[in-house]
Amino acid sequence: MNQNTEFTRVEILRKSEVSAALIDAATDFYRRGWLLGTSGNLSAVLRQDPFRIAITGSGVDKGHMREEQIIEVDEALNVLSGMYKPSSESALHVTLEKRFGCMAVFHTHSVWSTILSRQYAPDGGFEIKGYEMLKGLNNVNTHDHSEWFPVIENSQDMVGLAVRVKNLLANNADIHCFLLSGHGLYTWGSTIEEARRHVEAIEFLLEVFTHSENSVRKN
Amino acid sequence: MNQNTEFTRVEILRKSEVSAALIDAATDFYRRGWLLGTSGNLSAVLRQDPFRIAITGSGVDKGHMREEQIIEVDEALNVLSGMYKPSSESALHVTLEKRFGCMAVFHTHSVWSTILSRQYAPDGGFEIKGYEMLKGLNNVNTHDHSEWFPVIENSQDMVGLAVRVKNLLANNADIHCFLLSGHGLYTWGSTIEEARRHVEAIEFLLEVFTHSENSVRKN
Amino acid sequence: MNQNTEFTRVEILRKSEVSAALIDAATDFYRRGWLLGTSGNLSAVLRQDPFRIAITGSGVDKGHMREEQIIEVDEALNVLSGMYKPSSESALHVTLEKRFGCMAVFHTHSVWSTILSRQYAPDGGFEIKGYEMLKGLNNVNTHDHSEWFPVIENSQDMVGLAVRVKNLLANNADIHCFLLSGHGLYTWGSTIEEARRHVEAIEFLLEVFTHSENSVRKN
Amino acid sequence: MNQNTEFTRVEILRKSEVSAALIDAATDFYRRGWLLGTSGNLSAVLRQDPFRIAITGSGVDKGHMREEQIIEVDEALNVLSGMYKPSSESALHVTLEKRFGCMAVFHTHSVWSTILSRQYAPDGGFEIKGYEMLKGLNNVNTHDHSEWFPVIENSQDMVGLAVRVKNLLANNADIHCFLLSGHGLYTWGSTIEEARRHVEAIEFLLEVFTHSENSVRKN
Repeated sequence: MNQNTEFTRVEILRKSEVSAALIDAATDFYRRGWLLGTSGNLSAVLRQDPFRIAITGSGVDKGHMREEQIIEVDEALNVLSGMYKPSSESALHVTLEKRFGCMAVFHTHSVWSTILSRQYAPDGGFEIKGYEMLKGLNNVNTHDHSEWFPVIENSQDMVGLAVRVKNLLANNADIHCFLLSGHGLYTWGSTIEEARRHVEAIEFLLEVFTHSENSVRKN
Repeated sequence: MNQNTEFTRVEILRKSEVSAALIDAATDFYRRGWLLGTSGNLSAVLRQDPFRIAITGSGVDKGHMREEQIIEVDEALNVLSGMYKPSSESALHVTLEKRFGCMAVFHTHSVWSTILSRQYAPDGGFEIKGYEMLKGLNNVNTHDHSEWFPVIENSQDMVGLAVRVKNLLANNADIHCFLLSGHGLYTWGSTIEEARRHVEAIEFLLEVFTHSENSVRKN
Repeated sequence: MNQNTEFTRVEILRKSEVSAALIDAATDFYRRGWLLGTSGNLSAVLRQDPFRIAITGSGVDKGHMREEQIIEVDEALNVLSGMYKPSSESALHVTLEKRFGCMAVFHTHSVWSTILSRQYAPDGGFEIKGYEMLKGLNNVNTHDHSEWFPVIENSQDMVGLAVRVKNLLANNADIHCFLLSGHGLYTWGSTIEEARRHVEAIEFLLEVFTHSENSVRKN
Repeated sequence: MNQNTEFTRVEILRKSEVSAALIDAATDFYRRGWLLGTSGNLSAVLRQDPFRIAITGSGVDKGHMREEQIIEVDEALNVLSGMYKPSSESALHVTLEKRFGCMAVFHTHSVWSTILSRQYAPDGGFEIKGYEMLKGLNNVNTHDHSEWFPVIENSQDMVGLAVRVKNLLANNADIHCFLLSGHGLYTWGSTIEEARRHVEAIEFLLEVFTHSENSVRKN
């Protein structure tokens, strides 16, 4: 067995493991109502050079995913393996993974992220502070932390949206996520496990914030 | 093996696949609390000529369905296979499938559809706009869309109700669903998968709408 | 094989089937949060003469039940088979099954039954009308029905409570359930399936009623 | 086979049974949203002398636990078996188990415990009374009971927190739990089953209390 064959086998294993982890996350998020109606997308970097990501195909039912519904695309969104098309939102995943070094990007649609993102769009975002669950976010080591949740106006123009996301991240190195108004959540991690932990911790915080007195607008 | 036998086998396969897809949807909707207490009905067209649909039998527990609880009926609701009776609501399914070309009709009972349908019955319906999840509806390609959710007064007179549904659809070609006041949701699709996506997207939108400031009546 | 042996075998099968149906209901109700913390009891009549019921043993975890945790008791609550004790609430089950002909009695603890039962205890109950889900109740054939949900003051005196339950049912032949204030729901059926359908339909109605404007007290 | 070997085998079985019970509780609590984002910790005493507990390792995903993620530590938090580190919160578990005789300590993060703990932190706690579910707490035999839910200010200083917990328990022998402000719940039991029943009963009571008029602050 030569090196090339060995390399290929490692690559295949990697794709298979990544797909299994994405499907496991998708199945649980669907059950919780965060990926209903084929909404949302989950992705992870397969390798940096040449740049390859695994991402959920466009329009697939997130509660009943099969491995072939996870496709492999390059940075121009060319499909290198798999029978499904990438969704147009895949461009945001590539932006986050290629430009900002995220290894996994999870985009979910929950009731609370939808409500809060629309409520706070005029303010450009909102702040959550003082909760222990904030420690679920990377590099946050105390509840005595103030996290900014930026809200970007929703758009179907993916090129324009990618520019706004680039600007947002260039100017806010310490955020862990952003919301699109009336749309949902984008978060990420240096591993699939971290991106998943971020989704869970953030969705918990958004539900708490919605129900608590902090979310009552003072106007 | 002659053509007839082959034909029959295809038909049987089709019935079996359709039943499996209806049971899978029923099981998940039951788990989410959208088909409690044997409420609701799911159906799909088996063929157009002669017209045949598969539909959940009257009074069956949607969380524990067996294939024989999916019955086959013609447009006059005669039972062609299966030991269960069709519910009286089956007439609405046939109306939607025979007259308006829907290939699957899903009728669910959720907390939010029940509350909103009763709250907005005096207005004849309500409008939801600006949410990304609207793109879960067929032919909606942007969040910048306004969807009308018609509410029809509930009735036990199925003939009268079918007439009102026909009128509603004849005058509102672009709706994706309607609600019966204090009762629940009817939605449909050109495939079982689309009808299911519609249920999920619509239930999500109804929950968001109930909790958001939009649902606060201004009187 | 003589008649006695055959009789015994039928009895054993009956006990086994009843236990399986009670465990299936318990598992689902636990998942929905209606039987948390070992609360609640489910029972069904095994035979009338001599009177025997199967009932969940005292203090068992309803999410992880085993068949031996369903005990068989007579009308004096003597345990005829099984290693668990009957809970003191078993007396109410026997009252409903021995005196009023119910074949199954389900007692659950949900958030909404707890809240509403306490809120409406001063009024002796509350009325829910106009919802299609009311048709989930035995002999209700239209949404245009008004159902009375009696609330009895909670008590640890099971003898006194049984008397009040007898009086309630003697004077309200058409109710389908009652609530104990700050405690939970008792409903019943002529079969296990009907009792289960009643729990699901009633819990749905209580959740809708809590969230709707009807539940806003006018004082 | 000598005594030592026999002893070891019993110990191993005990560790294996305890781990299975902790994992079963963790899996269910995760599903209910009480241990999202790797939050929370569950522990149980393996033996008193020398003092050994089994506890969930730091940062493990509570919905997908494997036995090796349950570690064995002594009272100084030295890891005696397992590849994971103990979380800093393990010190509170040891305090409760070594000083107050609890055999299992469960720490969960739910939406309602987070909201109520923050809302009532200025009052040092809150009282819940009159609910049947209070009987889910050890030694409570009637709904006519008033339970005090102490709230301790959250802190990352585990030594200071342990002192405050010791003082709280020394002065309130009859409490069944405490909350850390904006953080979550600590409860315990004389068995793993009792600690689990306490979590379920308390979370139910907190949800009821949040939604009921009792939780409306009068200022």
